[in-house]
Amino acid sequence: MEIDFQKGGGLVPAIIQDELTGDVLMLGFMNPESLAETQRTGEVVFFSRSRNKLWKKGESSGHFLRVRQLLVDCDADALLVRVEAVGPGVCHEGYRSCFFSSIELDGSARIIAEPTFAPEKVYGSEKTR
Amino acid sequence: MEIDFQKGGGLVPAIIQDELTGDVLMLGFMNPESLAETQRTGEVVFFSRSRNKLWKKGESSGHFLRVRQLLVDCDADALLVRVEAVGPGVCHEGYRSCFFSSIELDGSARIIAEPTFAPEKVYGSEKTR
Repeated sequence: MEIDFQKGGGLVPAIIQDELTGDVLMLGFMNPESLAETQRTGEVVFFSRSRNKLWKKGESSGHFLRVRQLLVDCDADALLVRVEAVGPGVCHEGYRSCFFSSIELDGSARIIAEPTFAPEKVYGSEKTR
Repeated sequence: MEIDFQKGGGLVPAIIQDELTGDVLMLGFMNPESLAETQRTGEVVFFSRSRNKLWKKGESSGHFLRVRQLLVDCDADALLVRVEAVGPGVCHEGYRSCFFSSIELDGSARIIAEPTFAPEKVYGSEKTR
């Protein structure tokens, strides 16, 4: 299976979905190396666009993402990773999912989820995730 | 709510999730104009990277995506659109979801879903979707 990394400038979006609940937890990007590491280790490794390097999800928090199923779309330019999410949440702001804000009709954002952990206790002063 | 289009070169990924089943149906990209059109019309409008223009999902097939909830992630650089999907499927290859292929441990792809419609009857010879 050839993944089309070219269309996205060397990266493909990778949707992370909780295998049990179906909730979408986050979206990251993968380059060929991070995809290979994800497949080799069975845990999700992204490519961080802001830090320009591989980023193993959970390396700071312990909140690893264990791959249960890896899917690719019809154009081979997007990935869907169904995971077991270790720990109380994937979001560095202390939520189970990074998608905790709804955009309302007037354009404002509204938080629709409850926090599940205290990020300062998990991450300390680090900004990696 | 300010969406960060800059990090992705003017585009943000938009995950389309079936509101009822929780299934991830597809991933597209939006620029500011397509997001505004999506919000204005209540139906999903993408920006097509290959055709370099706005693309109303369903314009050829009638398989529109009605927005039920619009979510944004913690970094404001990815969207999750929970939808009512009109019709038997969103994929131009005749499946309910574009994510119908699993990547196996040996790297091969395996189709894990059944087709839900005959694409040649829906799209004719057109390649738009």
